[in-house]
Formats: sequence, structure tokens, C-alpha cells
Amino acid sequence: MDYRSLQRITRAPGFFWVPPEQVQGDRLTLTGDEAHHASAVCRLAAGEMITVCDGAGNAYDCEIVSSTSHEVSARIVRSHRRLGEPATQITLAVGIGKPSSLDWIVEKAVELGAARIIPMQVDESPEAMGAPESSRRRVERWRRLALGAMKQSLRSVWPAIDDVQSLPTVIATFSEYQSRWLIDPEGVAIPPGQAKTDHGLHVLVLVGPEAGFTPAERMAMTAAGASPYSLGDRRLRAETAAITALTLIMHHLGEI
Amino acid sequence: MDYRSLQRITRAPGFFWVPPEQVQGDRLTLTGDEAHHASAVCRLAAGEMITVCDGAGNAYDCEIVSSTSHEVSARIVRSHRRLGEPATQITLAVGIGKPSSLDWIVEKAVELGAARIIPMQVDESPEAMGAPESSRRRVERWRRLALGAMKQSLRSVWPAIDDVQSLPTVIATFSEYQSRWLIDPEGVAIPPGQAKTDHGLHVLVLVGPEAGFTPAERMAMTAAGASPYSLGDRRLRAETAAITALTLIMHHLGEI
Repeated sequence: MDYRSLQRITRAPGFFWVPPEQVQGDRLTLTGDEAHHASAVCRLAAGEMITVCDGAGNAYDCEIVSSTSHEVSARIVRSHRRLGEPATQITLAVGIGKPSSLDWIVEKAVELGAARIIPMQVDESPEAMGAPESSRRRVERWRRLALGAMKQSLRSVWPAIDDVQSLPTVIATFSEYQSRWLIDPEGVAIPPGQAKTDHGLHVLVLVGPEAGFTPAERMAMTAAGASPYSLGDRRLRAETAAITALTLIMHHLGEI
Repeated sequence: MDYRSLQRITRAPGFFWVPPEQVQGDRLTLTGDEAHHASAVCRLAAGEMITVCDGAGNAYDCEIVSSTSHEVSARIVRSHRRLGEPATQITLAVGIGKPSSLDWIVEKAVELGAARIIPMQVDESPEAMGAPESSRRRVERWRRLALGAMKQSLRSVWPAIDDVQSLPTVIATFSEYQSRWLIDPEGVAIPPGQAKTDHGLHVLVLVGPEAGFTPAERMAMTAAGASPYSLGDRRLRAETAAITALTLIMHHLGEI
């Protein structure tokens, strides 16, 4: 099924998520919020078609067999692998700044196709995420936002949101990526075609918080192999920089 | 003065706005919020340098002569024309959807360099902006957001935010633009280099609200000469689509 027919389907009866363990053979079962949304909000009944993804790269066209507000059971008619997923795995590592800013970055980055998001505690991050309990709650919130954005954007992978990491921890994983883009006002403009060589690979995009990375942080990243790129002459807020950078990289990869 | 030295200046003592009528000869006077921000928040005193723009394309490097929380007087040392402004005039006409969505679009579109934003009442817009009074208040809010974003992004033009218009009114002005981009899931991918021919011209970008344009609206726009372009396989929220489209157009124009 191509994007347009999928979009026609999903505009009407919606696009749902099911945990992989609730798919068995040619049957799957929506429960909780998803069942409520399908049956009570969208008023979908037996015989109607829906598309359901499992967040692990599988999507299914299904016919509803039974529908209550607690449980919707459906028969799988056709399955798709990596529906809506880009060929390149982009990981966005972003410095924690204002709370609303990162909420927004998570949502938009998932819409644009990021595979994974790493919230980083950096020098210019606000004093802390607070107690460990509060930090866990924020990460849980980002994971829920990522799930909603996955459904919104008709993707089949629920992007991973890491627990909060330090910049040195992220730098220690640089070798896992074939390409590392540091978004930095002091960098060079992204040359046309630069990202093309990254097609199908693992790419890391590093973006600072509102106040930016410190000179010491920039030096640590470039010394470890990150290439600094700028986003033009206008000074962008952190969330705008993150989304602008992802847009350009996806465009150069032929995904937008 | 280039961007980097400007950025160094503005990171420390800030970038201010002055209404054009408060610039006389080689003197200018900050009042109201701007004076308070300069004197009380940034604690700038006589002898310090600031950069001030008038929102009409002029920017001034100035030395502060006197500073109170009500009034900051400064002597102009050097002036710049169209500091931070792109060569191409981009007008974004955007369908009114959820209130928070358009707030955000205004802010980000200004950061990215839009010259003008037209909020449009379209078929899928929420029932109305409410009473005329409430509509005026929302437009005023967008204008304030645009002013803040102009300063944030180190631009010298305060982009115009039109009063709310109907789509037919906007279509009637199509001939004022050399190029009209309709962002539409049914369109074609933006061909590399497409926007290059628009460099230095007036470009109109049309984006729908959350629910999109209706088929009749799309037909009216394409019949009047708008070209439909899509933004890839992932379904984007209205605000993401607006920002992604502006990013790509600015990139093709060599501005990002």
C-alpha cells in the first residue's frame, strides 16, 4: 500500500498502535487507550478496516472482528515492514534546556523521521532535572509524546528515547555512527549533497540547548570527530535549530 | 560587522528594538520594555555598546549615553541596512487551526526569515476566531511574537502579520508573487534547485491547518497558479509542515 492510500485510510478510521506481544498469528488485539480511541472515539465496528503498527517496524492492515471500548480484536489482512521509515537511522542528541522546548523537539523530530533521541545533560542545561523521580517522569513523558508523533506521522517504529545522558557518555559512542553532525553557529554551511553519502547509515546529530554548547564542549566533540555545520545567518532558538537540521539532513538523504 | 561579531555582541549586552520615530540623527532612545530590559535586566550603563534595529530594515551599533529603567539614550556609531535579512521576500499564508499551532508557526517562521505572514480563515479552520475583538487580540499577539522572534534571530525587519484573510482574498493577490508554493501531500517532491530561480523575488508559501485544505480549496489554488509540493512520506502536523517548507525553501535559496 502506498502513502496516499494509507493516508486515505488513516484519515478516516485512524492509525493505531499495538504492543508486539498483542499480535498472535493473524490476530491482534487493541487494548487500553487504543481500544477506547478506535471504538468510542472513531466508532469503528466489526467489518471495518484499520491500520495498526507495533512500534517495532511492523504495520498491519486489519479487519475489525469485534469492538468494545476495552478491547478491539482484528484479523490481519496484510502486513508491511518498516512502513513510513527512512532508510537512514538518525539519532538526535540534544542538550536539555527549557522543558517545553524539549517536549516540542521530541514530537517534531519523530514526525520528521528520527530513529532515536538522546536527551543530554550539558554545561548550559538548567541546574538539573530535579530528583531522579522527576527525571524519570520527564523521560516517560517524552516516550509518550514520541508514540503520539509516530502515529501522527504514519511511522511503524516507536523511536527510542534514552534516559538522560552526559555529553562524555555520548561522545564515547561516536564510533557507532558513520557520520556526526554538530549544529554550531561557528560551523560551515551544509554543502549540497553532503548527506547523500550517509544514505542508509547511522547518523548522529548534536544540538545544544538554548544557551548553546560551551567552547570546551564544542572542542571535545570536534576532537572526537564531529563536523560543525551552521544553519545560516539568523540566530535560531534551540528547538528551531534541531528541526531545521533534521529537515535539511532528511532532504539531502532524499527522504523529504 | 559580520554575523559572528554581532552574535558575540548580542550574546552579552543584547539586541534591541526601537520604533523608527525614536531615531533622530545620530541619536536613538529606547523606552518602555526595551529600556527596562537594557538597563534593569542587562544592567547596561553609559559607555557600553549595543545593537538596535528599527524593524524597518535598519540596524545600529550604538554607545549608550545614559540609562534609566524608563529611557536609554544612545549615540549611533555605525548603521547597517537589512542586517540579517534574506534576499528573497517569503510570505507565508497559513490556514488558522489550533491557537497554539499558529503562535508557534509565527515565531519559527520569523526566525527562519519570513517577510510576512497571512493568517487565513479556511474551510477547515475552527468555527471562527470568535468576536472581532478576540480576533484582533490574537493578531496583536502574533505581532508581539514576531517582534520577539525578530530580535531572537538578529533580524532588522519586523515581519508584517496581516489581519485574518479569506483564501479567495489571498488567491486574488497571487499575481504579486513570482512563485507560489502550495504544501500538499498530493504534490511532488521539491526538486533540488527549484527555488534557486526564485532568488531575490517575492515567493508565496501556502500551508493548510491541521485538517488540510479541502479538495475545492486545492483546486482553486492550483487553478490560480500555485504549484503543489509534498514534504515526504511522513504525515506532518501543520506547524511542522510550515517550518519544514520554509527551511527547504530558504536552503534552496542559499540562505541556510
